[in-house]
Amino acid sequence: MKKFINDVDLVEEQMIQGMVKAYPQYLKKLDCGNVVVRAAKKERKVALVSGGGSGHEPAHGGFVGEGMLDAAVAGAVFTSPTPDQIYEAVKEVATEAGVLLIVKNYTGDVMNFEMGEEMAQMEGIRVDHVITNDDVAVKDSLYTVGRRGVAGTVFVHKIAGALAEQGAALPEVKAVALKVIDNVRTMGAAIAPCTVPAAGNPGFTLGENEMEVGIGIHGEPGTHREERKTADETADLLLDQILADIDYAGSEVAVMINGAGATPLMELYIINNHVADVLKEKGIRVYRTYVGEYMTSIEMQGFSISLLKLDEQMKELLDAKADTPAWKEIGGKTHG
Amino acid sequence: MKKFINDVDLVEEQMIQGMVKAYPQYLKKLDCGNVVVRAAKKERKVALVSGGGSGHEPAHGGFVGEGMLDAAVAGAVFTSPTPDQIYEAVKEVATEAGVLLIVKNYTGDVMNFEMGEEMAQMEGIRVDHVITNDDVAVKDSLYTVGRRGVAGTVFVHKIAGALAEQGAALPEVKAVALKVIDNVRTMGAAIAPCTVPAAGNPGFTLGENEMEVGIGIHGEPGTHREERKTADETADLLLDQILADIDYAGSEVAVMINGAGATPLMELYIINNHVADVLKEKGIRVYRTYVGEYMTSIEMQGFSISLLKLDEQMKELLDAKADTPAWKEIGGKTHG
Repeated sequence: MKKFINDVDLVEEQMIQGMVKAYPQYLKKLDCGNVVVRAAKKERKVALVSGGGSGHEPAHGGFVGEGMLDAAVAGAVFTSPTPDQIYEAVKEVATEAGVLLIVKNYTGDVMNFEMGEEMAQMEGIRVDHVITNDDVAVKDSLYTVGRRGVAGTVFVHKIAGALAEQGAALPEVKAVALKVIDNVRTMGAAIAPCTVPAAGNPGFTLGENEMEVGIGIHGEPGTHREERKTADETADLLLDQILADIDYAGSEVAVMINGAGATPLMELYIINNHVADVLKEKGIRVYRTYVGEYMTSIEMQGFSISLLKLDEQMKELLDAKADTPAWKEIGGKTHG
Repeated sequence: MKKFINDVDLVEEQMIQGMVKAYPQYLKKLDCGNVVVRAAKKERKVALVSGGGSGHEPAHGGFVGEGMLDAAVAGAVFTSPTPDQIYEAVKEVATEAGVLLIVKNYTGDVMNFEMGEEMAQMEGIRVDHVITNDDVAVKDSLYTVGRRGVAGTVFVHKIAGALAEQGAALPEVKAVALKVIDNVRTMGAAIAPCTVPAAGNPGFTLGENEMEVGIGIHGEPGTHREERKTADETADLLLDQILADIDYAGSEVAVMINGAGATPLMELYIINNHVADVLKEKGIRVYRTYVGEYMTSIEMQGFSISLLKLDEQMKELLDAKADTPAWKEIGGKTHG
């Protein structure tokens, strides 16, 4: 295992500390575990809390800030945070407008976030949650009942975050989060695995000519293994399954080409070159494209494609001002 | 070689096309080779042009936009663009206020950018240039006379770009670029090499317990090889050499922890955790920190640390509004 770390037991703590020290203008860390909240709490708005295991950086701490999240809770690598941590995060950011939890559909996350939610409700805090499940690769898996929540979750952070920032009430913020969840689909593939520091060995191994299709974001193998294909062929494979799941015909979409951690931008751009061509050919208009690392699996060599079918409200909220370490939008003007 | 590409001969072209298709609100591509310019030309300002070989994504095309560059010229992977391409870029973005070329100190880049400059001058275009040389690892190398220009170059794009956007004249923009160059130092290390697609094999090999210290950004090995160290020890090694080169005592700095392409954010944050502590201990105040991929070497597993010693002018320009695919600043307000 070749990594720039100090001690496998200190990875999460030192990472979160390093993130907060990099961005003190955006973030502060609570004392109770790896909980990151906005440096300046904003009152009178619905507070958005997300999180999950570590290893998905910049998710979720990188999305804490104006126009997106109010708190991010990080567990150990690929391990759900505890209900206590989630409760502490909720308590810290709660306002009279309430709190919305944005939870990725993985069994541990769902269970612990719901327990944290109940603990907060028992204290009289108004809390609700949504569960993201954008991964079209699997219906049920070792890790989940139903589809997994993966990179498309970041669109929920952005769009629900923008509406919350505008002062909308909790039911409205929840409704727009659910609308994004209903309209976003993702699928990924990988040509090399990642290594959880505490494990010391890769989660799976792949031959020179193999790739995993339908990967999740917790280092697990995909739904199946195939002969490695070109960038364009791999993109087609994923796109076909995404496009079969919702009717995108004639619609406008946001595209996310999300790097899994070790895949260079060079390759992600090459993938987008083809995705853009295919969508154009199919009459699906691309409103915005985001290429980069949003929801990673440590240093997995892979990528996912997410397509979000947009309406006017989602377009406006996608472009609204955001000021976080990992997603910034200038806002207040319309590009092209 | 496991990469998501289609054809080694099409890597640069498909990558640039994919970048421009992702960000049409920011970028357009000229027909003459891989030259990327702002989607909307801005008149009456000094135009900034940078570039170099491909393989450094998001540099340089990702920094084209308001408050940073006006054009980026991309050669083949790790190969200087031709004087013709540079000339075409200059001609396209030139205004009556003139053009400033920002060139990283590598022999091929310097030669070709100077030839492109002369070609444009012969057409009556007012052009000047600066050469960045922030790498403290080597004085002279196989690739350069003098120090190499590496990740610190991005600070030149940001700060000179902000001043140009404000309408400053060419000598002022050049002066601030030179001030950044005088005050920025960088050094890097790697634990795994990268593979130039057309070569098909890594530029060097490293044993499980080895690392390269003093890497450049063209896949070349470093100044020497050492036994692999922890994140903190590696950061110390680089910081020591950077801090020995300029007197940073009592000053305020901007820090860049730049990923070489395959190093996950998790590790870059861990590195920053230590860098922040060391600087604090030494009484060097951190004004801003940037952690991420700014100037990569395809999928090299490594990182560099850059320290820019700031004055009031540089602080203000660093925070000024920028709106590009890879660097955005909201501007118009002061963070903490």
